[in-house]
Amino acid sequence: MLGFERLFGVLLTCLGASFAWDRGPGYAPHVIGGLPRGQHQEFRTNSTDHLRLLSSTENFVVLGGRNALYNVTVGLDGHLDLTGKLIWGSTDAHRELCTLKGKQEGDCQNYIRIFAEVNPGRALICGTNSYKPMCRHYSIPLSEKDDTDKENEEAQGRCPYSPTHSSAYTYTDGHLFTGTVADFSGADPLIYRENQRTEQYDLKQLNQPAFVSATSYDEYAFFFFREIAMEYMNCGKAVYSRVGRVCKNDRGGPAIFYDRWTSFLKARLNCSLPGEYPFYFDYLSATTDVVKLSGEDVVYGVFGTPPTSIEGSAVCVFRMKDILEAFEGPFKAQKDTRSNWLPVSTSLGPTEPRPGSCVEDSRTLPSQTVNFVKNHPLMEKAVPALYGEPLLVTTGAQLRLTSVAVVPTTGPDGRAYSVLFAGTADGRLVKFYAVAGNTLQKVVVSEMQVLPPGQAVKQLTTVGKQILAISENSVVSIPQSDCSNYTNCASCVGTRDPFCGWHEESHSCREVGTVPLGHLLDTAALYDVCPENNWVEERVVTHGTISSVGRDPQSGFLVHESHNHTCPEIAVAGAYSAQTMAIALVVVAAVALAVGGLVGIVVGHKCRLECPMMGVPPMEHRNQLTWSKSRHMAHHSKDINLLMNTNQFYSPPASPHPVIFSNAQEPTPQARRKMDNLGLVDFDVDGKDRRHESKNSTESLEKDPQHFKTDTLQKVKKTYI
Amino acid sequence: MLGFERLFGVLLTCLGASFAWDRGPGYAPHVIGGLPRGQHQEFRTNSTDHLRLLSSTENFVVLGGRNALYNVTVGLDGHLDLTGKLIWGSTDAHRELCTLKGKQEGDCQNYIRIFAEVNPGRALICGTNSYKPMCRHYSIPLSEKDDTDKENEEAQGRCPYSPTHSSAYTYTDGHLFTGTVADFSGADPLIYRENQRTEQYDLKQLNQPAFVSATSYDEYAFFFFREIAMEYMNCGKAVYSRVGRVCKNDRGGPAIFYDRWTSFLKARLNCSLPGEYPFYFDYLSATTDVVKLSGEDVVYGVFGTPPTSIEGSAVCVFRMKDILEAFEGPFKAQKDTRSNWLPVSTSLGPTEPRPGSCVEDSRTLPSQTVNFVKNHPLMEKAVPALYGEPLLVTTGAQLRLTSVAVVPTTGPDGRAYSVLFAGTADGRLVKFYAVAGNTLQKVVVSEMQVLPPGQAVKQLTTVGKQILAISENSVVSIPQSDCSNYTNCASCVGTRDPFCGWHEESHSCREVGTVPLGHLLDTAALYDVCPENNWVEERVVTHGTISSVGRDPQSGFLVHESHNHTCPEIAVAGAYSAQTMAIALVVVAAVALAVGGLVGIVVGHKCRLECPMMGVPPMEHRNQLTWSKSRHMAHHSKDINLLMNTNQFYSPPASPHPVIFSNAQEPTPQARRKMDNLGLVDFDVDGKDRRHESKNSTESLEKDPQHFKTDTLQKVKKTYI
Repeated sequence: MLGFERLFGVLLTCLGASFAWDRGPGYAPHVIGGLPRGQHQEFRTNSTDHLRLLSSTENFVVLGGRNALYNVTVGLDGHLDLTGKLIWGSTDAHRELCTLKGKQEGDCQNYIRIFAEVNPGRALICGTNSYKPMCRHYSIPLSEKDDTDKENEEAQGRCPYSPTHSSAYTYTDGHLFTGTVADFSGADPLIYRENQRTEQYDLKQLNQPAFVSATSYDEYAFFFFREIAMEYMNCGKAVYSRVGRVCKNDRGGPAIFYDRWTSFLKARLNCSLPGEYPFYFDYLSATTDVVKLSGEDVVYGVFGTPPTSIEGSAVCVFRMKDILEAFEGPFKAQKDTRSNWLPVSTSLGPTEPRPGSCVEDSRTLPSQTVNFVKNHPLMEKAVPALYGEPLLVTTGAQLRLTSVAVVPTTGPDGRAYSVLFAGTADGRLVKFYAVAGNTLQKVVVSEMQVLPPGQAVKQLTTVGKQILAISENSVVSIPQSDCSNYTNCASCVGTRDPFCGWHEESHSCREVGTVPLGHLLDTAALYDVCPENNWVEERVVTHGTISSVGRDPQSGFLVHESHNHTCPEIAVAGAYSAQTMAIALVVVAAVALAVGGLVGIVVGHKCRLECPMMGVPPMEHRNQLTWSKSRHMAHHSKDINLLMNTNQFYSPPASPHPVIFSNAQEPTPQARRKMDNLGLVDFDVDGKDRRHESKNSTESLEKDPQHFKTDTLQKVKKTYI
Repeated sequence: MLGFERLFGVLLTCLGASFAWDRGPGYAPHVIGGLPRGQHQEFRTNSTDHLRLLSSTENFVVLGGRNALYNVTVGLDGHLDLTGKLIWGSTDAHRELCTLKGKQEGDCQNYIRIFAEVNPGRALICGTNSYKPMCRHYSIPLSEKDDTDKENEEAQGRCPYSPTHSSAYTYTDGHLFTGTVADFSGADPLIYRENQRTEQYDLKQLNQPAFVSATSYDEYAFFFFREIAMEYMNCGKAVYSRVGRVCKNDRGGPAIFYDRWTSFLKARLNCSLPGEYPFYFDYLSATTDVVKLSGEDVVYGVFGTPPTSIEGSAVCVFRMKDILEAFEGPFKAQKDTRSNWLPVSTSLGPTEPRPGSCVEDSRTLPSQTVNFVKNHPLMEKAVPALYGEPLLVTTGAQLRLTSVAVVPTTGPDGRAYSVLFAGTADGRLVKFYAVAGNTLQKVVVSEMQVLPPGQAVKQLTTVGKQILAISENSVVSIPQSDCSNYTNCASCVGTRDPFCGWHEESHSCREVGTVPLGHLLDTAALYDVCPENNWVEERVVTHGTISSVGRDPQSGFLVHESHNHTCPEIAVAGAYSAQTMAIALVVVAAVALAVGGLVGIVVGHKCRLECPMMGVPPMEHRNQLTWSKSRHMAHHSKDINLLMNTNQFYSPPASPHPVIFSNAQEPTPQARRKMDNLGLVDFDVDGKDRRHESKNSTESLEKDPQHFKTDTLQKVKKTYI
């Protein structure tokens, strides 16, 4: 019955993916499934924590929560440990004032939203503080006790009033640059750094913006946000995605402009499907930091359709070069409210210095220039996406993308790949990449359910070899790759995971870098590397068309096909076509019947009708890559819940270096004992973590039945195809 | 093994629908499948025929094709008979000229595009005539011989030059009103009736329009089309859907306006998802005629996103009242090319008579009024969709809607329902309806593959109790309902097909009107009507949420749930949950094993290991409602192909009333013999068509196995749920 279960699992997987065409042009993951069992770890807090990732390093992350700052250390195997927790609640006075303002108990808390290391050994931490945002300076390492009496600094303009207000910040050159709101109701949005801000209530500068991220680059602080597009007003109400910038050395303008930016400019980000009538994804929801792609600085962004649309999401990449260029182009303006928005002819505006450029002392700028910038913050040209098209397009509410992270890696072919991870509003993680060439080749490696369905992956980050998915109240670590999941050569090579390669000597799928592999990721490689009987129909997805490449089982020749059809035949690399599936299923039942018959004959021969009926076999073993996994996951995460909830009651001892910046510590002996008591973690006497080993031994235990399954399957295939 | 196959079929169906959420908000058909076997009929012509439905009556349709006009009679059982074919090819001279103009052989043919009965006994027929459009007058009944020498009339402005040019026409009050192009290249679009036309090359009037339909209503001729929106130009390039109108009694304006409309106005059609940022479906692709809905005149339209967008389609309904009202509102205009498009203040334009209104003699209008209409053809207000939202929204390329038809009917509850049929670009037919109430309740009854995948349903019409789906080169008739498909009470009532009701006496699902039923369509009715063990989880789809209503099998109480989740558990009314499916599948295999064992024991007991192995059982019988049907259909259509191809060589005899308007004839004896020779059609000696009977007998033959299947299933269910 093991073979049957595997088949059933594969069937589900196949059918799941067979509707892939409906989930976005070119969206067709090689693997769809839940989390690899026992491969992820979770850190969970209260459901009301509004967790926000504030900092991430090689081996830990800093998260802002409700009345607390968490330092979570990420082990090499992805294990998550709360190695420090700074407690900072609002005072009773602030809470009462907040309640008087008509806010609920949940709002009248201190949600930590800013963490910046201002000097080595000194951190600036800010929180919403019950609708009265405050900042504090702390020494690093931080102490765990609640410093209620610590000196507070007003943080209006720097920190939002509520965890639901949008905000973004970057700390650079000794200054904090923030994009957020400066009032209680959230109606006064601004981009702020001490002394300078954007014009108040000027819809041309900021019109109900939602800040997504901020970063320092070159001589500028960049803000990525979306806002209501003033220039679109005559055509309806729409949200556009923007990149805005200010000069880091902006000191305000002359006279009355002393507290205003002299350099705030913004441009539209164009993430669209090309065509005669381009389709724009205008609703920016996340970006990465500035990263390198083929030697160039780029930023990846997640865009979508606005709410109450038909659901569509896309990931685009923008070169910083193109962003800077947009700001050197013409400005866009409206002569009067009845006029069109048109490019401003260069002869009309001041030319020297160019409005919005960074000058040594902005206070000496002619007021004409400052006035021009104030009235013309919008650039005529939108920033084009690299390649002129998205790297990924998904449709449907389940695949509404909410976050993105990028991992540069070297594939088994020695080439550089930028592997992207996108989180969805439904708790899924999509792993994909694009290879530039004559056409942009897009490969969706996998789609995994990493959080319970319905729980959005709010943020993503990479720590070591792990991807951390952050939801409202939990952090889940997932390995960037799990090559051991691919049990045969065809699936290992065919899935086109740049992290994995087939190691012939050990006959196993291994992580690139662990053993010398040197095999190409290319389609052709599949047939050079993998033995004949392991052939696979593999999918290469280019814009709008599914091309499948497979070896004809009769002739042995490679077959290239381009479909635009209903149901792509193969979804999982190393799997079999839907037709095969159907036949195999029937065959399995028939074989079961036949085997039953034979056994019956033998048994009947032996015991002459005295034997009892055969029972239903247990359904414990399931295919690793199937949807049925998600059930296992839900079950699993319950166990982890248990572990995490206990963590809330576990107070780490006051050690000299208890929390942040003390780098991935071994848990203290107390912690070890505590965890050990739960019976979930198994530490040895020498303090070595044996979990990894035991996991491996489980795997090797599982290997034999899998071998058996594969054998059964192949027998079926050989006989009936 | 029959039970197993049924299960497999149902599994496929269920899984197909389980991804429904991704296919549009609220899109969740109760039944997904292929055509009911033996229930559809096909008429097929050459692949290059560019078929166009020109007229449809109670029992036949007139189709324009390549060098031919087809009269296809539709039998009560949906059988399609070519009862007449008018041949009209281009002359050699016209063909040669066409070739000289650089056109291909396929373009240099006469594609019939217009058929209008101008007087009783007299028809106007026009064709593209190798890029030299011509009209002819024929007497009715038409003769079949090629009247090459018949007198031609120039049809420039009335008939398109190519079958790929868009065109729409309506014949009313003794005049032909057409929307098409008046030149070889298709660059001169116009709305035309002898003597009057729209302004030439005036982008304000018509900007690359694609005409979808035309209809006469009240004192106007209405045109439904899409075009590039001039008023959107400052915000980008976009296509908008329009309704345009001219007065039927418009005689042109004074002096130089003698050949121009004095009454051409147009308004935008607003088919959008409501919300802060409405999502517009702006690409009109089909409409119905003017029909009645709750006593009001309405038009249904199919809208979509433009090509190269993420795919989305919607069906909206517009009241003629609202359309007329839009034309009474303010006009929209642009002061100069740098200005916004704004409503024209009423004080600025001429008021008496109102520009664009129908007057007794338009030639006496003041030239100021005529000039105003010429320059202000666009209305400020868009026509709102009834209910403010679409009746159906689908996403994904497979469900790109291309055509629509409406069938008013009375449900088993005695209430009036307007059942809609929408055809897709992928050859599917979606049957749905909406019930107005506090919220608009949308019910998708079924989705069927009626044409081979990839072949668009270009047009839909109703003839008798049949729906005719017209593709480029074929017509398929599908029964509007097939109640006998629902084999039990739960599926009959639960699918909410307004055509069907449960007949308790005969224990069968019967068509409304055939027997007295009197049962409510309401959810509650299900439990009043159907016996306890037939309970079903049923889905009622409202905007954005799937609500499921079911009877708890333990308690017997009704359970109402609202999900917004990944995989709706039940897709087919009367089917079983995915989990049940999985268990059932395992169980079937186990049972097979057990049965095999038992049989083995018995056999072993009898023949002591002398018996041969059991073979694989045949896979002939499949579930009627599953995807696996589509394979059968393809096979079936091949048979019909054969039949239809022979029709090309079959020339009907010159009888006195050979073709159009001679009403559903019995095939002539020659035809009967000819068909009989093919061995595909079985006529009796008395000339009576026994196909219907034989089909029925096949059905009754199939009924028993189905009973058996159901029994098996229920046994499984009872045992393991």
